[in-house]
Amino acid sequence: MTTPTEVPRTVGVFLFEGFEPLDVFGPVQMLGALRDQFHVVMLGPEAERPVTSSLGQRVLADRAWDDAAPLDIIMVPGGQGTRVEVANARLLTAVRRHAETSELVTSVCTGAAILAAAGLLDGRRATSNKRAFAWVQSQGPAVEWIAEARWVEDGHYVTSGGVAAGIDMALYLIARLHGTELAEQLASRLEYRWNSSASDDPFAAYQGLV
Amino acid sequence: MTTPTEVPRTVGVFLFEGFEPLDVFGPVQMLGALRDQFHVVMLGPEAERPVTSSLGQRVLADRAWDDAAPLDIIMVPGGQGTRVEVANARLLTAVRRHAETSELVTSVCTGAAILAAAGLLDGRRATSNKRAFAWVQSQGPAVEWIAEARWVEDGHYVTSGGVAAGIDMALYLIARLHGTELAEQLASRLEYRWNSSASDDPFAAYQGLV
Repeated sequence: MTTPTEVPRTVGVFLFEGFEPLDVFGPVQMLGALRDQFHVVMLGPEAERPVTSSLGQRVLADRAWDDAAPLDIIMVPGGQGTRVEVANARLLTAVRRHAETSELVTSVCTGAAILAAAGLLDGRRATSNKRAFAWVQSQGPAVEWIAEARWVEDGHYVTSGGVAAGIDMALYLIARLHGTELAEQLASRLEYRWNSSASDDPFAAYQGLV
Repeated sequence: MTTPTEVPRTVGVFLFEGFEPLDVFGPVQMLGALRDQFHVVMLGPEAERPVTSSLGQRVLADRAWDDAAPLDIIMVPGGQGTRVEVANARLLTAVRRHAETSELVTSVCTGAAILAAAGLLDGRRATSNKRAFAWVQSQGPAVEWIAEARWVEDGHYVTSGGVAAGIDMALYLIARLHGTELAEQLASRLEYRWNSSASDDPFAAYQGLV
């Protein structure tokens, strides 16, 4: 089902009204800084129109969600806007269609609720934001939700915990595709202490989930 | 010199062509998530015009740099664009004028080079990105540059190390203004492990500076 992959891989980030800024720009910083390996594209309801984050910042979309140009990696962020977008048939259809041909399908935070609502996580293991975990679970009753995890990988799906967890997942994607050394070098260059263990998650306990 | 402060404080982020995305959206996520305490405004060359990051994402400015509306906190990010902007008289004048009346003047990464080029750091202690440290030093020969520091506070100036260090500095600003407990709660809510010690910086050694 996956298309042959050329480097740089195209990473499509699905913006929607009320996306969480760090969910987007943590992974975008990590992947985008490796220009030879990744090319990041911002997708929105309409090309060349601004999409407003949960905190008010406006980011222009490069392409529309349903633009047919292929994506190697899909990234769905979370944020307050997911509460509305899980019922947005146009967004869910676009995510589903891209997921059929992309090499990796990823989410940060409550972005997993959108993947779940699209039916993509049924029968799979996944994680999400720990503070909104019960709501996310309600969007995918057939998903095996893992509360205590920084990120969870199942086949070509990689879902991360809340907000800052997306940075660690992005570094894991780099390690998976290009080796741990490059991920570690990049983290040090960007003065980031990578939490490189998928199972090391104190925030599930913090939110009373374990 | 500082104006009386009302809460929420207005945080003005100075965007310019080639700003580093995480330098901006790390601190914006931390401060902006506390709506009762902070109101974040994006400043750019022109109001309502997009500013393109070093990695290609376009963010709309809410106000122009030289808009006279007061700012309680100034935040100057870094990025490749600083190489050009240290010679941009209009930007330096705007930063200087806002710095005269604002409660706190902060920078992330090579944003310190802009504060230095504006003459604001002369005789003060400051830090910056560790990878571009020599270049930043050249922009402020009268600044006491501290290589090994996650962030440095001197009076109402707070400068941070590179890229991800801005997140830790933003949490410190929250702790300074509203107490450590709120900063720690926010970090846990956003699933972020705060590096809460200003002097704990492994990246100066990584870049051979100490």
